[in-house]
Parts: sequence; C-alpha cells; structure tokens
Amino acid sequence: MVPTHDDPRYLRSREAIVAAAREVLLTHGPGALTHARVAEQAGIARATVYRHWPRSDQLLSEAMATVPMPFFDAPASPTRDWLVRELTTLAQQLGHHDVRVVATTLASAALWEDDMDARRARFADLLASRLADALDDARARGEVDLHTDPRDAAALVIGPLYYRATIERGTTDEHVVATLVDGLGRWR
Amino acid sequence: MVPTHDDPRYLRSREAIVAAAREVLLTHGPGALTHARVAEQAGIARATVYRHWPRSDQLLSEAMATVPMPFFDAPASPTRDWLVRELTTLAQQLGHHDVRVVATTLASAALWEDDMDARRARFADLLASRLADALDDARARGEVDLHTDPRDAAALVIGPLYYRATIERGTTDEHVVATLVDGLGRWR
Repeated sequence: MVPTHDDPRYLRSREAIVAAAREVLLTHGPGALTHARVAEQAGIARATVYRHWPRSDQLLSEAMATVPMPFFDAPASPTRDWLVRELTTLAQQLGHHDVRVVATTLASAALWEDDMDARRARFADLLASRLADALDDARARGEVDLHTDPRDAAALVIGPLYYRATIERGTTDEHVVATLVDGLGRWR
Repeated sequence: MVPTHDDPRYLRSREAIVAAAREVLLTHGPGALTHARVAEQAGIARATVYRHWPRSDQLLSEAMATVPMPFFDAPASPTRDWLVRELTTLAQQLGHHDVRVVATTLASAALWEDDMDARRARFADLLASRLADALDDARARGEVDLHTDPRDAAALVIGPLYYRATIERGTTDEHVVATLVDGLGRWR
C-alpha cells in the first residue's frame, strides 16, 4: 500500500530524509547529495527516498531550506545603529560552516539548476528589498543622504562580508562594518 | 606499454581530457565532473582519464586552471583611475558564465576539498596583496588617505561585484564602481 501524505509513517520518513540530506550536505557538500547517500544516512530504503523526492536537486533544495536566513527583517531606528547591528550579526553567521555551505551552494548550483536559481533570486530580492525599504524610510525621516540607489545597498554592504567569508575565509571586524555603513551615504 | 610523460600520445590525451573537463564543468557544473562524463566528452577510454587524474577533484582543479584571472596585476598611476578601470573590467568579467562558474565553484568546493581550498587561499591572497600593495604605494605618493587597512580593500571593492554577479546575478554600473573606490579613502 502506498502511504498517503498525512500517514504518520510517511511524515516520519520525510523528516528523517530531510535531516539526513542536511547532514550529508553540511558534512560532504552538494556533490555528495545522492539518493543512495541520503538513504544510507537516514537508515531508510533508497526507494523511499526516491518516492519522496524523485530528483537529487529536490533533495538539495530541502536540505538548504533547513538553514534559516532571517536577516534585515525588522528595521529599527536609528537606522545606522540597526544596520551596524544587523551586519555584525550577518558577519558572525557567515563565520559558521552551515551558513557558508548554504550561501556558496546557492550561488554555485543556481548556475545549472532552475529550482536553485529561483531560490537564489528570491533570496537576493528579499535582502535587496528589505535594505532598500529601510534606507528609503531612513531618508524620508531625514536620517541620511544616500550616495547610491537604495537597491545597490545589499551588494555594497553584504558583498564584502560574503567575499570575506567565502573567498578570503576570514572574519569582518567592527571597523569594517562601520566603514561599509558610512559608505552608503552621509548619516546625520 | 604505459606511455611516458613526454610521449606525444600522452600529451595529446592529457590536452583532450583537460578540454573535456572544462567543457563539462562550464556546461553542467562541478557535480557532473566525473571520470565517465569526461571520458565520454573527450572520446577517450575511462581508464585513460583515471591514469592521468586518479581523483575527480583533480579533474576539477585542472578545469578551473583553464580560466585565467589576471586582475590587479599591473598597477598604474593615478591609482584611483587605475582602480576604477580594473574594477570595471572585473565587473564585466563576472558577467561571463565561465568566470562565475570558477568563482562560485572555488568558494563552494573549497569547503570540502583541501586542494581546492589551497587554490582559493592562493587566489584570495593574490588579489588582497596586489590591492594592498597598490594602495600602500598610492598612500606613499600622497594620492590617498585610506579609511581602512589596505588588506581590507579586496573585500570592500571586489565583494560587492562578486555578490552582484553571483547572488543577485546582475551587473555593476560605473556609478557603483566609483562609489566603491571613493569609499576606500579620501582621494586627492
């Protein structure tokens, strides 16, 4: 009998597969994320993994979704202080292996897989919109004269942290974060 | 008979394998870079591919090395103009699929493979050193008062182009490049 989607056994095996996929991704990388490897890690039959996710790129999407990225979601005033706090937190997060895996896998896999590219686009747009909205509001309140289009802010302030974490594999200190925020415009 | 390393047949098959590995990497991604796939693409026996490069991460290293990255290698004065030119060129290069593949594969594969991590570290250090040296010289000539440590310059000016190209999948315009260079310090 094929289990239905609200069958507890179906849900349990689904959870076990997602946990195993996450473990394989973080420990061995996206290239290792095969049905065989995930089935072995979960202690579940390979056919069961195929039944839940017929394609390996779907396994990757599920594993990626287990690492949350709640950045810039609650703007606060003064905006400059809030930005420094958020970027400091983001820089710390990018020091973690899990977050580096998700960020670099997203950028890499998106070049070949449509699902991953859609995920990349949503993520990029979310961060760019949140920052642009916060800066637009700050400008309306007279907190800042911006040097660039608010839609460029994500690349300008997140880009250096991302490069430092994934290419230079180093940490971003407070002084650099302050320099980045001050580079966006003239704060009053 | 096992061919020796200066045997023309050995060199020809080596070239064919590197070309095929590059093609597979650029077209299908690092996950597709297996001995079987490269052998098929090159029209060569799989055993020959194994003889040249026993491990698939070695195939990836060879394929990556075929995409040159000659950035910031010849500083010129005035330094501000040179930096704007170099960053504009880099932004254009990062618009090409091949360069995006190499950059994102480097960041991703380095998290799991020691050889790739060594390549990443060399590349990051090369760019950071070249920029730091050029800025140190500019400072010594009285061209600029820097806001940050010259070793931070790579992350500050390359980071946004890299994020824009690989996460936002967009282009960086001249105004943003100028903003980045002006963010490094006060140019005279």
